Amino acid sequence: MLLPQFYVDDIIKTALSEDINYIDVTTDYLIDDDAVSEASFIAKAEGVLAGIDVAMRVFELLCPSIEREVFIRDGEPVKKGDVIAKIKGPTKFILKGERTSLNLLQHMSGIATAANKCVKLCEGTNAAVTDTRKTLPGLRALQKYAVVAGGGKNHRYNLSDGAMLKDNHIDAYGGIIPAVKALRAKIGHMVKIEVEVRNKEELMQALEAGADVIMLDNMNCAEMAECVKITDGRAKLEASGNITLDNIADVAKTGVDIISLGALTHSVKAFDISLRITG
Amino acid sequence: MLLPQFYVDDIIKTALSEDINYIDVTTDYLIDDDAVSEASFIAKAEGVLAGIDVAMRVFELLCPSIEREVFIRDGEPVKKGDVIAKIKGPTKFILKGERTSLNLLQHMSGIATAANKCVKLCEGTNAAVTDTRKTLPGLRALQKYAVVAGGGKNHRYNLSDGAMLKDNHIDAYGGIIPAVKALRAKIGHMVKIEVEVRNKEELMQALEAGADVIMLDNMNCAEMAECVKITDGRAKLEASGNITLDNIADVAKTGVDIISLGALTHSVKAFDISLRITG
Amino acid sequence: MLLPQFYVDDIIKTALSEDINYIDVTTDYLIDDDAVSEASFIAKAEGVLAGIDVAMRVFELLCPSIEREVFIRDGEPVKKGDVIAKIKGPTKFILKGERTSLNLLQHMSGIATAANKCVKLCEGTNAAVTDTRKTLPGLRALQKYAVVAGGGKNHRYNLSDGAMLKDNHIDAYGGIIPAVKALRAKIGHMVKIEVEVRNKEELMQALEAGADVIMLDNMNCAEMAECVKITDGRAKLEASGNITLDNIADVAKTGVDIISLGALTHSVKAFDISLRITG
Amino acid sequence: MLLPQFYVDDIIKTALSEDINYIDVTTDYLIDDDAVSEASFIAKAEGVLAGIDVAMRVFELLCPSIEREVFIRDGEPVKKGDVIAKIKGPTKFILKGERTSLNLLQHMSGIATAANKCVKLCEGTNAAVTDTRKTLPGLRALQKYAVVAGGGKNHRYNLSDGAMLKDNHIDAYGGIIPAVKALRAKIGHMVKIEVEVRNKEELMQALEAGADVIMLDNMNCAEMAECVKITDGRAKLEASGNITLDNIADVAKTGVDIISLGALTHSVKAFDISLRITG
Amino acid sequence: MLLPQFYVDDIIKTALSEDINYIDVTTDYLIDDDAVSEASFIAKAEGVLAGIDVAMRVFELLCPSIEREVFIRDGEPVKKGDVIAKIKGPTKFILKGERTSLNLLQHMSGIATAANKCVKLCEGTNAAVTDTRKTLPGLRALQKYAVVAGGGKNHRYNLSDGAMLKDNHIDAYGGIIPAVKALRAKIGHMVKIEVEVRNKEELMQALEAGADVIMLDNMNCAEMAECVKITDGRAKLEASGNITLDNIADVAKTGVDIISLGALTHSVKAFDISLRITG
Amino acid sequence: MLLPQFYVDDIIKTALSEDINYIDVTTDYLIDDDAVSEASFIAKAEGVLAGIDVAMRVFELLCPSIEREVFIRDGEPVKKGDVIAKIKGPTKFILKGERTSLNLLQHMSGIATAANKCVKLCEGTNAAVTDTRKTLPGLRALQKYAVVAGGGKNHRYNLSDGAMLKDNHIDAYGGIIPAVKALRAKIGHMVKIEVEVRNKEELMQALEAGADVIMLDNMNCAEMAECVKITDGRAKLEASGNITLDNIADVAKTGVDIISLGALTHSVKAFDISLRITG
Repeated sequence: MLLPQFYVDDIIKTALSEDINYIDVTTDYLIDDDAVSEASFIAKAEGVLAGIDVAMRVFELLCPSIEREVFIRDGEPVKKGDVIAKIKGPTKFILKGERTSLNLLQHMSGIATAANKCVKLCEGTNAAVTDTRKTLPGLRALQKYAVVAGGGKNHRYNLSDGAMLKDNHIDAYGGIIPAVKALRAKIGHMVKIEVEVRNKEELMQALEAGADVIMLDNMNCAEMAECVKITDGRAKLEASGNITLDNIADVAKTGVDIISLGALTHSVKAFDISLRITG
Repeated sequence: MLLPQFYVDDIIKTALSEDINYIDVTTDYLIDDDAVSEASFIAKAEGVLAGIDVAMRVFELLCPSIEREVFIRDGEPVKKGDVIAKIKGPTKFILKGERTSLNLLQHMSGIATAANKCVKLCEGTNAAVTDTRKTLPGLRALQKYAVVAGGGKNHRYNLSDGAMLKDNHIDAYGGIIPAVKALRAKIGHMVKIEVEVRNKEELMQALEAGADVIMLDNMNCAEMAECVKITDGRAKLEASGNITLDNIADVAKTGVDIISLGALTHSVKAFDISLRITG
Repeated sequence: MLLPQFYVDDIIKTALSEDINYIDVTTDYLIDDDAVSEASFIAKAEGVLAGIDVAMRVFELLCPSIEREVFIRDGEPVKKGDVIAKIKGPTKFILKGERTSLNLLQHMSGIATAANKCVKLCEGTNAAVTDTRKTLPGLRALQKYAVVAGGGKNHRYNLSDGAMLKDNHIDAYGGIIPAVKALRAKIGHMVKIEVEVRNKEELMQALEAGADVIMLDNMNCAEMAECVKITDGRAKLEASGNITLDNIADVAKTGVDIISLGALTHSVKAFDISLRITG
Repeated sequence: MLLPQFYVDDIIKTALSEDINYIDVTTDYLIDDDAVSEASFIAKAEGVLAGIDVAMRVFELLCPSIEREVFIRDGEPVKKGDVIAKIKGPTKFILKGERTSLNLLQHMSGIATAANKCVKLCEGTNAAVTDTRKTLPGLRALQKYAVVAGGGKNHRYNLSDGAMLKDNHIDAYGGIIPAVKALRAKIGHMVKIEVEVRNKEELMQALEAGADVIMLDNMNCAEMAECVKITDGRAKLEASGNITLDNIADVAKTGVDIISLGALTHSVKAFDISLRITG
Repeated sequence: MLLPQFYVDDIIKTALSEDINYIDVTTDYLIDDDAVSEASFIAKAEGVLAGIDVAMRVFELLCPSIEREVFIRDGEPVKKGDVIAKIKGPTKFILKGERTSLNLLQHMSGIATAANKCVKLCEGTNAAVTDTRKTLPGLRALQKYAVVAGGGKNHRYNLSDGAMLKDNHIDAYGGIIPAVKALRAKIGHMVKIEVEVRNKEELMQALEAGADVIMLDNMNCAEMAECVKITDGRAKLEASGNITLDNIADVAKTGVDIISLGALTHSVKAFDISLRITG
Repeated sequence: MLLPQFYVDDIIKTALSEDINYIDVTTDYLIDDDAVSEASFIAKAEGVLAGIDVAMRVFELLCPSIEREVFIRDGEPVKKGDVIAKIKGPTKFILKGERTSLNLLQHMSGIATAANKCVKLCEGTNAAVTDTRKTLPGLRALQKYAVVAGGGKNHRYNLSDGAMLKDNHIDAYGGIIPAVKALRAKIGHMVKIEVEVRNKEELMQALEAGADVIMLDNMNCAEMAECVKITDGRAKLEASGNITLDNIADVAKTGVDIISLGALTHSVKAFDISLRITG
């Protein structure tokens, strides 16, 4: 998976502009133009890396000639003390880019690490772990990329690429079956339809309507297991709502196909990484 | 405190573009142009609100004529079940704007709520709670605004508006005293100088150098208390590093002037708010 | 279907900047600020309208107080001489916006008209008419919107929202079946897989692989009819390649589900509409 | 003629963003990062090339190290089967850039080809072939460049760089003569004035007024020939309105100086070129 | 003359972003949201106004409901003490917008005032006063607008809308006559050709070549007068180089048609205007 | 001091777009693609250089392979006839970039030269010379950079990074002392407070309030000298208002710490530099 470079560059430039504004009054006035340093990205915890190319690109944008060496790649595990990458070049640019680079890398690795924990807890089951549209403004692409780096999968990228019927859509058409039918007649042939259901009755209507995916909204594990039995492979089932590291393994064991977690992207804990000047 | 409208609008437009792309294949095809709904923003937890104007603006940008009524303002406490605001207008626009509006409001209120918890734990002491430059790319202004809404204060907005000397800057000049002196001769008269120190010796050098603010980096409470005594008001003291809800009250009691927390903005837990269609 | 206003506005502003640059040396110097005119959009041919809101918005952006009345809506038929809309306001702004407004309206209506001709030729069959990704840079959203206004449907909006396996992807995995299997294991659950096939053998592999949609690439009608028979509803079939107004009805009669035409958006004939100053 | 690189880059980035969005779910998941391919741009028809540097730049923006070799240059003739250019590099980037690159190249070559047909039909006469302001939003620079590549000339780039008096401007001043006089007194000395006339009487007024260029609006060939005789070199004459490949040679023979065609840019037929993976 | 609103808005937003950044730490913290003030724009010198709509727009963008009343319009004379305009609304927005508004108004009025002085010194002669391409980055449209407000005219807006042959172009073709001939054969019919000449010999070549405009580069008044006599109306003559308020009247009396001054836009003296809070 | 490259690039691209628009109708049509030239930047006056990297970057953006050699650096003195830099490459790009490059270099060097004159006049005193917020829209960073190149210092970059209390702020709180106290309680610890005073009484209040900096607004030298004596080092004193090259030395001798001049950036005289084609 490759984020378009110019897209990433725009985010980095925005971040650098926020952080540097005109000048860096400390570094610009104190550090010689000729001073050169070496610095290492060091993991301070255990997890899964994401965003190292983005973090390196920060320095390349500030100073194309800066040397960069990457030892651990996106999607690979890191443990405390690991040297993730090294950079070498003008001290000025290392100091100016440090904060922006770390802000991006820690956020993305935080997401990958959390996603990976969920994925591991679901191992041995049929369940895939996915994100949602509960992302932070301007960062959706980076966040969804990090979910994949952690072993998860992406739910809808946006409102164009998949249909999801909730109460309001259904009520507007007098029920799940007529709503799905009306929508199927209008959407393009590449668009799947997911229907949100709260109970067995709605599940059966969604199945009859021919939904491609059915979201089981805030059900407990027993209810979900029953839904899996009823569905019997006729549609993909997605568990959603109040799923945490504590209960995700149990949810996965119900046999659902997808478990989606908003927290993967809306409540990210930064993964601790430092940039240590080593020479 | 007022974020410039066009600045906020740019963030919202980016977020809406990410979320809607061309069309909303569910809503655009199923919901009548004439359908009208009412919806309420409901708090699902206890905390402090931030971002309600931003959240309302999402709908105004989609549909200028949508009716908006706000009951709880930024900086005010909310408790579970509170109706924060109501909107009324075309169902299409309510459904299209819902996710973007909530993503912004939950993130900003999450920050305000966390900042407020810290502020309350410092009550009765001299310590102010501040953010850092560990913010999410593109969201610094919204995040720093939310910290203030929660009762905290803002540290540097960027590298232009305050000088902070760390090891590297100091080493380049052979010590704290010559480094501060060199910098003072160059910076503008509105810029304060903060020096990062790791022990009593460095503290005394920073004081002698005339630093405006001194950051006590990763010290324990006993060390910080001693620094406060030594400093005796000659500079502002900032505690930084490994401060959590568990130890912040103790840190505050050491007499430091400022406690800064990166987690306020780099590890935000979204504050749970829902948009309930009520008619 | 509703294009986001700020998205459309960006296109209009780009177009107005291209056309006006600094000033309109004719109108700015010759027409009084107080002069007011009325003008009507008149169809000069028979077809289907698309883009009237975009065309009106051009004038609103130049002068918010300009009066606008629309008589024919997007998706509705127009015939030669029909008055599509009227505007009334400062002559300066009518003259400045005229060209940009017409350029947009004529392009979009040209697409809707062509799409509609195709749709009518397929009436009575199962075949839906769709666009492709062969769109003009910067105009994809407007073009895909216009296809829908003409009664067509949208194929993929972009490379994120549907998978399409061509030779190269298939060769990389040693055949259709392993390639589809590998992809299914990685993509999100909302993404459909389409496979491009050139003959019966490949069709059968694609069916066995469980492709959601199969594109019959440059087949003749007899071949397509056979593919329809073989497929028997197990996947959607898309006809593509060298389809024109002359042969589309025959293609539709083969029983394919989708007929996609690049020419709908890459070779657009502007629909003739004029803006007549009437007072 | 050289389009500014950063200007072209903005159009390409917009086009790539439209087409790729976050990720290419087919290529990103199926094609190895290390896979390398060679591909050739092959003409599928006879015409004149335009946009090959733009098409190559698409791949350079995606992957700076991709190898590019161009055999046929903008403005040169191509015939069916000609190899226009070759690229060699990571298969991923070739597949991701293919559609955007072709969309640009086919559109621009379509314009150059059509312009060239017109130019050839006017050979042996005095008439130059020009475009108009009837261009597609955001694409004016590329379109006008392609007209020149095809041997045509550019009419006004925008409303700043030439004055054109139509009915409304003339009516506002009570006739052609006072209107031209009023305008001449106000415009800069580098701006030419063109007057649109519908008959001999208006032509004679325009000549008396000292118009630099006179547009003969929707006249037949006999009328135009008479206008040429009357004018006798005192102004440039531009034929405009309802000119097609069928009648352009006759129009040219009337002796007019310029023949302008909106269709060159508002009704473009894409020139068929394919990108064939060859290794 | 009307600058496109969205174009002006972009400049204002850039200026406000530069000036406010996140927050106004003085006003946001000290002034009540409810506080209302009245303020007047007062001229502190004598000159010609330009930019009052731009200056007013600054406040409208910050606060759409702010009341604005304009007493003196662009292009009108102002004298010391004149009240140019009044605004009334939230004190916060008046204080936040003050600097940006004045920076724009003072710059534009400075240009209009200087242009007007030149125009007055040329009264009674044939000479028009024009600007050049020596403008400040990003401000060309505002600057050229202000020149017109001061009674001057605009030279070329950019390199597309007029040809200007200097030494290098001429040398490339072996002389003025072949260079003009080569260019005339290639440019569109709306583009005028200006030739820069340094002496009588070059002037005569330029006349023979049929140049539309001839620039007399750094000649003294006697030389220019002779050029006027030689030319005898066969081309427009432009005086350029080292023209100041001290010698412009003499230059005008030589009979040249145009006097262009780079200093009008590259060395602007701000016109003194203050914003006085009056209630 | 290092302006972020991408920030400078945006300004250059804006300037080039303004100047070139689509094409350069003179150079694009007359100069061979293969023609190569050498050109030198020559100082035409005595002063201090600023912006040479920006000026060079213009050509690099147009043509990355152009050779560039710089002999005089920002902040260094130049005298008439000095060769500042040389470029060598395609003639086309040298001619296209010339005007934009010079516009930037002359403006920035004009600022540096003026700032340097002020600094020299203050030599031997305690007074630093600073700019203000009276900058030109979109050019603040370049202008403030040039002030530093000339030996001056920067005042506030924007309204976020320093507080400045004027009448209105003070009136809102019933006096200097309560206003400063209220503000101190709210702002972050890195923000300094400056108070504007008009007389001795206000000065004493500002001192009592603990202002960090006090601006002496429009005082004469005798008044300022008295203020310096009263203050006795308890705050920094800034002289402001009606300071010119004629009186700045006298102002400096009063003992004030800072002298700020709006004219440094709002009334810039371009520094004369030419680009001479030398081969």
